[in-house]
Amino acid sequence: MTRAKPTIEIARSAGWCFGVERIVQMAEKLLSETPNGPVYCLGELIHNPQEVERLRAKGMVFVKSHEELPPLESGQKRKVLIRAHGVAPAVKKALQRKGYEIYDGTCPLVTIPQKFAREIAEQGYRVVIMGHREHPEIQGILGHLEGLKVQIDVIAGPEEVGRLKLKASDRVGLISQTTHPYEKFAQLIGEVLKYCLEVRAYNTICQATFDRQDAIRELARRCDVVIVIGGRNSSNTCRLAEIASQYTTCYHIEDASELKGEWFLGKQRIGISAGASTPSRCIEAVQSAIEQLTSSVERPEILERV
Amino acid sequence: MTRAKPTIEIARSAGWCFGVERIVQMAEKLLSETPNGPVYCLGELIHNPQEVERLRAKGMVFVKSHEELPPLESGQKRKVLIRAHGVAPAVKKALQRKGYEIYDGTCPLVTIPQKFAREIAEQGYRVVIMGHREHPEIQGILGHLEGLKVQIDVIAGPEEVGRLKLKASDRVGLISQTTHPYEKFAQLIGEVLKYCLEVRAYNTICQATFDRQDAIRELARRCDVVIVIGGRNSSNTCRLAEIASQYTTCYHIEDASELKGEWFLGKQRIGISAGASTPSRCIEAVQSAIEQLTSSVERPEILERV
Repeated sequence: MTRAKPTIEIARSAGWCFGVERIVQMAEKLLSETPNGPVYCLGELIHNPQEVERLRAKGMVFVKSHEELPPLESGQKRKVLIRAHGVAPAVKKALQRKGYEIYDGTCPLVTIPQKFAREIAEQGYRVVIMGHREHPEIQGILGHLEGLKVQIDVIAGPEEVGRLKLKASDRVGLISQTTHPYEKFAQLIGEVLKYCLEVRAYNTICQATFDRQDAIRELARRCDVVIVIGGRNSSNTCRLAEIASQYTTCYHIEDASELKGEWFLGKQRIGISAGASTPSRCIEAVQSAIEQLTSSVERPEILERV
Repeated sequence: MTRAKPTIEIARSAGWCFGVERIVQMAEKLLSETPNGPVYCLGELIHNPQEVERLRAKGMVFVKSHEELPPLESGQKRKVLIRAHGVAPAVKKALQRKGYEIYDGTCPLVTIPQKFAREIAEQGYRVVIMGHREHPEIQGILGHLEGLKVQIDVIAGPEEVGRLKLKASDRVGLISQTTHPYEKFAQLIGEVLKYCLEVRAYNTICQATFDRQDAIRELARRCDVVIVIGGRNSSNTCRLAEIASQYTTCYHIEDASELKGEWFLGKQRIGISAGASTPSRCIEAVQSAIEQLTSSVERPEILERV
């Protein structure tokens, strides 16, 4: 029994984005300049467990919050890295007070929603942020609004507009987490303006998110199955899996070891995409593993074992 | 041969809106205070030919533009009415220079897009107006932007966004003609923000438009045929007919004389709606005419004649 070998296609835009590449390079540089360690990092550098382990092995120490950082003795020098998602200004101040040398790796594209959220709040608009309240990027944005006396809401999408209790006289500033789907944001704007006078909306979704989401949509339309690689705690990876699932069967994995032969039985077109925190070697490993799994599918005895 | 008499239902919101009622009352008052006439009106008072004829018979003189108004002799007094759609400030100044007594019937809801368009243009936003360039309301809004050095575009809807040639750095102010469908405006906002940094959008669609469009949508969903009454040059009436056509068979008429028996053959639920310029006596006349036409349908000899 022979079958045509399935085609495996990687989305035209997938894996590390500019902000992730930049922060990983910063981390590598700091580690090489600090051979006697440690280099601290506030939170996991990126939402990819394998990459975090790799950096931990090189001497990076991950702490959950600035409060976990040990106090410094007089004259002692220690470096702390702020990851791409950014932090609240209050956190940065706390690090300064503790005497740490700060290396700020906030993605320049994440500073845009921080800046606009502050600007519109200062102008008296009530602020609506589309995103996940617990996500570090959103926590950073909220931190930039501290001390301002305007109403601030974080909502997941247009389906939650009801709980904003909008009034006809409301003027609403709208921003989105950089990694959320644009279509949802556009719907949110339309839903909000239905009830109020003015919306001021900023396109704070980064280009890499646009490109990856467009690419996976295209890919999923012509594939029998799509594999999305990335941390389960990675917001942008979850969005990719969500989009692919609208068009075809999709599996979200963290690495090649999770792949199962049965996913590819009878599938002719297999697509692969990856979140912004997924290194290319991980994408390549998944591609090789799928090639192996699907070549064995040609042998009927293996087929039956599945 | 007998059939169940069809039900005829009038949309829960239809016909004269607040702005039209207000301007017709103003016109009547001016005419009664000026028994020796004439009272001038810039353009047709409302987009309803029958109503215009009625007022013309009472002594109202309709002129297409202020240039058509006769120059006044010294001491001569003449009244001119500005209709609900509003005019450009330059037109108002020209009337003042000519020495006419101005009665400004601009609908207060039409002054909202005029005001916001000016405000955002002054703040350096490029302005995109959704509407019909030739419509008097849009001409009035454009007149409020005279002398400002920003890019101004009038487009019919989201399908024309391509011709705006938006740049990533663009900050766009968006307003809509008061009588356009909200769904189209919401889509336009989403389409514009896809290509640029910021949109500032105003909900300039009036409540009467919202209500009438909601009502006809509801009505059309449960009717076999919908009759929309209003001037063919009435923008809001054309929008009602457009919406109804998405759900059922729809005929746009100006008055009862246009009705045809064949439209109602075999129809069990007949809906009626009317544009904001259509007086209630006209709606009632159409309802009676349909009742007559459909009662004769019960007689087979009439059926065959149709």
